[in-house]
Amino acid sequence: MKIPPVKGTRDFYPADMAVRNWMIDGWKKVSLRNGFEEYDGPIFEYLKMFQLKSGDEIVEQLFSLKDRGGRELAIRPEITPTLARMVNQKISSLPKPIKWFSVPRLCRAERPQRGRLREFFQWNIDIIGVDDVLADAETIFCALDYLQEVGLTPNDIVVKISNRKMLAAILQSIGISQGELEPLYAVLDKRDKLPQEAFEEMLTKQVGDENKRTLILKLMTVESIEQISSVVELSKTAKESVDELGRLFELLDVMGAGDFCVFDIGIVRGLAYYTGIVYEIYDKESELRAIGGGGRYDNLLKQFGGPNIPATGFGVGDCVLAILLEEKGLLKPKPQELDYFITFVSNITFNDKEGNIQSTPEDEMVKLTAKLRRLGLKADFSYKLTESLSKKLKEASTRNAQKCIIIGEEFKDNQLSVKDMATGQQELVDINKFLAEVKLQSR
Amino acid sequence: MKIPPVKGTRDFYPADMAVRNWMIDGWKKVSLRNGFEEYDGPIFEYLKMFQLKSGDEIVEQLFSLKDRGGRELAIRPEITPTLARMVNQKISSLPKPIKWFSVPRLCRAERPQRGRLREFFQWNIDIIGVDDVLADAETIFCALDYLQEVGLTPNDIVVKISNRKMLAAILQSIGISQGELEPLYAVLDKRDKLPQEAFEEMLTKQVGDENKRTLILKLMTVESIEQISSVVELSKTAKESVDELGRLFELLDVMGAGDFCVFDIGIVRGLAYYTGIVYEIYDKESELRAIGGGGRYDNLLKQFGGPNIPATGFGVGDCVLAILLEEKGLLKPKPQELDYFITFVSNITFNDKEGNIQSTPEDEMVKLTAKLRRLGLKADFSYKLTESLSKKLKEASTRNAQKCIIIGEEFKDNQLSVKDMATGQQELVDINKFLAEVKLQSR
Repeated sequence: MKIPPVKGTRDFYPADMAVRNWMIDGWKKVSLRNGFEEYDGPIFEYLKMFQLKSGDEIVEQLFSLKDRGGRELAIRPEITPTLARMVNQKISSLPKPIKWFSVPRLCRAERPQRGRLREFFQWNIDIIGVDDVLADAETIFCALDYLQEVGLTPNDIVVKISNRKMLAAILQSIGISQGELEPLYAVLDKRDKLPQEAFEEMLTKQVGDENKRTLILKLMTVESIEQISSVVELSKTAKESVDELGRLFELLDVMGAGDFCVFDIGIVRGLAYYTGIVYEIYDKESELRAIGGGGRYDNLLKQFGGPNIPATGFGVGDCVLAILLEEKGLLKPKPQELDYFITFVSNITFNDKEGNIQSTPEDEMVKLTAKLRRLGLKADFSYKLTESLSKKLKEASTRNAQKCIIIGEEFKDNQLSVKDMATGQQELVDINKFLAEVKLQSR
Repeated sequence: MKIPPVKGTRDFYPADMAVRNWMIDGWKKVSLRNGFEEYDGPIFEYLKMFQLKSGDEIVEQLFSLKDRGGRELAIRPEITPTLARMVNQKISSLPKPIKWFSVPRLCRAERPQRGRLREFFQWNIDIIGVDDVLADAETIFCALDYLQEVGLTPNDIVVKISNRKMLAAILQSIGISQGELEPLYAVLDKRDKLPQEAFEEMLTKQVGDENKRTLILKLMTVESIEQISSVVELSKTAKESVDELGRLFELLDVMGAGDFCVFDIGIVRGLAYYTGIVYEIYDKESELRAIGGGGRYDNLLKQFGGPNIPATGFGVGDCVLAILLEEKGLLKPKPQELDYFITFVSNITFNDKEGNIQSTPEDEMVKLTAKLRRLGLKADFSYKLTESLSKKLKEASTRNAQKCIIIGEEFKDNQLSVKDMATGQQELVDINKFLAEVKLQSR
């Protein structure tokens, strides 16, 4: 009986796994060098935790399940709620600020599309406990540190940045009430994702007043921070958040990441919980979905029953990123290698003085392989025991072995033949000397 | 609103994550040096796939869910069914033998107990396409290679080994029919797990004939392979599988792993699909559940709609292993370190000739940190910008920084103060020379 995999999930055969490991190892390396510590939570949480953060609409995007006691659980669609729960649980004992990263496996019950699967991996970086826009700058730098590390340049990607606090102040100054802000953000978030007509229709539904609508549409065409004041007069709060945004760009310049970053007033992020700086990372041609995005969420921990503590962070998924890197020829997983491939010449035996078989080349191969592994070397042999030496050498080459060891007649004099697979050079070495040298190197 | 984690799951705070990473990285390293390639599958599969392998009883141990189309899915409780599915899907293009490993996250809807959680990680090693008992020996060696790597000795752990093929032949020779074998295995598997009386009661239910039962009980007390023939006369098939077991122990000796391994006729493994060599790894005092176990399953791929191809492998979970390593003082996760911690002296500015502020120590700290990170070094700074230098130095020490850089008055002459945190020595270095040296080292 043949059973297929579930649609929207992936099988990671060794070649696919090499790509996934290469990407995730890169995320980890860059996170660590940026001073972040790794954490993770369970693959499932109580369903209500995700509802609390994202509202009831999230439920249909979740894979939900029940435990034996009938409690409603869900596979995590994101890790931020878990982060908030974990931080709140130990808030008094955790040294602040908290600089944490994670590379969770996440699931969403969406219709699979290009760059959007039902199961994926996401790089998450968060700084909790810092009000200063320096923390927002650092998270953006960290994302760009990785993206540069794999070879992407300002010709390939762009970080589009705005400030919800600023947008809120401006919108309120033109007469949008506090309560209208959140649904309006959801509409504005769709501006680049929908045809102009459909977007304006949505906007009309949300903002009845034509004057206000015209101002909003004009505001959305602003191309620099300076231009904003030519559309609307800035309130004191708006000015402060404009300055904050200015300081962010200044810091990104100081960090050497300025070339990747632009102001884009259209970036508002769909999710309700962002409170300040928001950003999204795109391929320069805007042909793909967002590579990642994030921002400030100063109210989330409180909403989760914790203290009033500021936070900022981002998520970068593996699917869109892999498509972009593949297109740019920048997917460079490490091929698997062996230090030694051990073979033997058939039809010989190693006898004692009386002519009794003391050991076979096969057993000596197994013994030597085991010794090399215990010394920390990547060593393997062929299971095709009866094949010719030339076929075994071919297998050594297929397996990317650096050196091939041949156990032959010389073994009777305690000697091994060692072939360098790159140069083709072959030499006889004393087995004890060889092992002593390997031992020295592996330290 | 405070929401707790789900019972039986774990939150991995950085200290816990360091342990998990240390263990999994060790599994990966040893797998690679033993010539295995990594694979993984999705976190959920069709429910029927797990039923196919383990029968309907498995369903109540699963976390099952439905997708939007109402199809029944389950979070994987083990990865072997996925392995069988994946191998079958590409059977003709995969080079044989297949030597694969995986470190899947798995979930079981069991009652949480010591060493048994609802979510855990498991190291899996499998060799597919090799009949030779050498493959069974290699998997056992590989498990022991890791367990020795972390410091466990034959005084700490033991691998108990038997052969189902042998047991089948012996049981058949005393009159147990083929069809009675599987349920009898399930009973025999309980021998060490139940009180003697309860076990004998179960056995009586399964084997009505008293003579047969007496023979089985006598057989179960056998302490060496040689003793078996004193209880029952060995059939030709039984002799062959006794020889196979003998060869396995011979190979384990050749590999230098013999000291860890004993014959134990009571090891049958509960699962139905094992067909030959079977083994379980225990702590020497038998105080914990099995650390791991495995064996040969030559029929599984065929049962999953694939060809008739032999396979052998094991699984080692993280929970029991962590308890054992902790008890033995062998849990040794790497502490997180920084190469550089960058600080500054407050209340100075860097001005141009006209006395205008060119930059602040804060910005220079951020710039230098960014540069070091881009060069591949682990570098961080303190967000407590206004704190005294001595407090910042304390933070550098808490963060395990090897060196602390101080941006002070000397920065005006392009000099940095670099403090070695181990020796306490401090020296002034030219900033460009310093960066050039770092660049050289990081290559």
